[in-house]
Amino acid sequence: MAWVRLIEYGEASAEVRAVYDDIMTTRRTDWINNFWKALANDPPALRRIWESIKQVMAPGALDPLTKELIYLAVSASNGCAYCISSHGAAAKKQGMTPQMLGELMAIVGMANQTNSLANGYRVPVDERFEKLF
Amino acid sequence: MAWVRLIEYGEASAEVRAVYDDIMTTRRTDWINNFWKALANDPPALRRIWESIKQVMAPGALDPLTKELIYLAVSASNGCAYCISSHGAAAKKQGMTPQMLGELMAIVGMANQTNSLANGYRVPVDERFEKLF
Amino acid sequence: MAWVRLIEYGEASAEVRAVYDDIMTTRRTDWINNFWKALANDPPALRRIWESIKQVMAPGALDPLTKELIYLAVSASNGCAYCISSHGAAAKKQGMTPQMLGELMAIVGMANQTNSLANGYRVPVDERFEKLF
Amino acid sequence: MAWVRLIEYGEASAEVRAVYDDIMTTRRTDWINNFWKALANDPPALRRIWESIKQVMAPGALDPLTKELIYLAVSASNGCAYCISSHGAAAKKQGMTPQMLGELMAIVGMANQTNSLANGYRVPVDERFEKLF
Amino acid sequence: MAWVRLIEYGEASAEVRAVYDDIMTTRRTDWINNFWKALANDPPALRRIWESIKQVMAPGALDPLTKELIYLAVSASNGCAYCISSHGAAAKKQGMTPQMLGELMAIVGMANQTNSLANGYRVPVDERFEKLF
Amino acid sequence: MAWVRLIEYGEASAEVRAVYDDIMTTRRTDWINNFWKALANDPPALRRIWESIKQVMAPGALDPLTKELIYLAVSASNGCAYCISSHGAAAKKQGMTPQMLGELMAIVGMANQTNSLANGYRVPVDERFEKLF
Repeated sequence: MAWVRLIEYGEASAEVRAVYDDIMTTRRTDWINNFWKALANDPPALRRIWESIKQVMAPGALDPLTKELIYLAVSASNGCAYCISSHGAAAKKQGMTPQMLGELMAIVGMANQTNSLANGYRVPVDERFEKLF
Repeated sequence: MAWVRLIEYGEASAEVRAVYDDIMTTRRTDWINNFWKALANDPPALRRIWESIKQVMAPGALDPLTKELIYLAVSASNGCAYCISSHGAAAKKQGMTPQMLGELMAIVGMANQTNSLANGYRVPVDERFEKLF
Repeated sequence: MAWVRLIEYGEASAEVRAVYDDIMTTRRTDWINNFWKALANDPPALRRIWESIKQVMAPGALDPLTKELIYLAVSASNGCAYCISSHGAAAKKQGMTPQMLGELMAIVGMANQTNSLANGYRVPVDERFEKLF
Repeated sequence: MAWVRLIEYGEASAEVRAVYDDIMTTRRTDWINNFWKALANDPPALRRIWESIKQVMAPGALDPLTKELIYLAVSASNGCAYCISSHGAAAKKQGMTPQMLGELMAIVGMANQTNSLANGYRVPVDERFEKLF
Repeated sequence: MAWVRLIEYGEASAEVRAVYDDIMTTRRTDWINNFWKALANDPPALRRIWESIKQVMAPGALDPLTKELIYLAVSASNGCAYCISSHGAAAKKQGMTPQMLGELMAIVGMANQTNSLANGYRVPVDERFEKLF
Repeated sequence: MAWVRLIEYGEASAEVRAVYDDIMTTRRTDWINNFWKALANDPPALRRIWESIKQVMAPGALDPLTKELIYLAVSASNGCAYCISSHGAAAKKQGMTPQMLGELMAIVGMANQTNSLANGYRVPVDERFEKLF
């Protein structure tokens, strides 16, 4: 029993089904995971967020595996169990090995350590780092 | 004027200098950034954290650029200005282009959006995602 | 089985019962939820936090529904499952509809996205925004 | 001097200008704030995020002031100085008074307090709160 | 120039002055720091939060130095520059030495690292840890 | 069933067993908790993080109980259920009483409240707080 209703394909409106169909086609899969079933309570949000993710995760200057690794790392850092689980699966599908996961997690842990130290000690940004591009 | 003293090479103990030297050698650079100068107030922490970062960021199953992108993404997600700036510079040194930065930030933004939605709607983890490896 | 003891009305001290009674009277309900039963391990904290919440959530320049929506939004953003659940129920009692929840969650998601982008890109505050009132 | 380039209207591509024009028209203003100038480094992100915000913040079941209050509350809770400043200004434009700001901040503070206590004490969700709608 | 008005003693209402006086008496100091001057825009919040802090930080099962160290550690972990600075000063007044600060920060960094790893790997709580008291 | 494999002593490599043995010896216990069993998927991380924690938590300017209280407070503030549970047990072993826990949690709650208020109101750091040591 979920907190809000998870809307299954069979009971979904045509508007929701169209998004579900596009998710399954784009991801070459035959099922919809719970995240979308929850968002389907708000069809415009379902469409907007799906379209955004599709655009953001499409191959570009970064390849799909690197993109999924970044998504997973941020989700792990935020402690979002759902997103860790779904993007962990997505990263594995793109080729993430157990060794890659170990290295990714080590970076997540180290970044959280040094982020808290840099903030905690109120370290001023070095002049040379003030401009990136 | 910083919150805690930033220890310069010239005034550092031999113990601290040894770490500073290793940082400069490993990174092929001739200066020390403020993060280490703040940590140098606690020499064992300076050594421990430097040794850990050196180990974590060494090439492995993930290449150095991917590692820096992950570090930068977590730092951006955590809003640590110092770490964004220093690891942004490090990622650029490893080859990050402005387009890669744009795609990385788009993923950071999207992950933070969907992390808050998955948590906010209390979406239950799908059975298929409960085990990764 | 909870991590700390949840103190039931029947076993509570007079000091704790007085707070429980006030909670039930103020909220026009006949039960006490687990949050207070956990806080009751520290009676001064129980009283202090209840008195504070009663004061903060009382009608003022903002009406009770708006107040509960804000409380829920912050809790969703923080990913606190307990607070999402209890303040979701409280917001519903004040009139929150499923459509309002959808819009609220969409804002929470968007705010988390743009917060991480503004921090991640280290966007400087515009001169015109430096002073509010 | 910003970390990334802030792209001014005069130097922007037609694609970016089109978004800038829509922002100014929609918000009935004659200037563009820094957030969009930073995002303009990645034109598809600029368009995607602007279109999303426009959709999310449009009047619906919640009125524009309530929406801005929620956005501001989440930004304050996340400690995003840029977003606090820009959405504080937007909320004021929609009618937020100093008294409303005081009440909003009091809720943000209280929610962060009780969120940390509910998580810290690992309070189990009450059966009655397990289902919302 | 601050974002909201910082209310000085000379211009404060009698209600606000009474709290300012109590802060100075309790802390044996002759000035008011900016946090209270900002809260003074909402006098009931000023009183409520001051009374709460006075109660929470009073000697109890934990001594004043330990209490300030905990406050500082949480503030450093949250990256709140204002609170780090003000509670750093308070901790120093209670006897915190530079060495103690170094050890405290090392724990903050380590906790943030292992918190992100425990969440990131979704480590299940051991049976023996499920009940504390 | 855990998300990643929890590596038991009996199936562990010699490298992992050596760390497990050191954990049990150092902590005077005869079992290994799940955190280490998850980290054991990445033996260098297991060793590195264990050695770091051993060093950080050893008695120094702060005694072992104070160190565990700080670790617990940060974990509670971060909402890491695993770390709250394991470091709660460790703090109890070092002498934390229920009353101490209550006071610790009250500080965690108060710090999270005032951290969000100081950030939310964008309170400028007082001149006197700009330098600590």
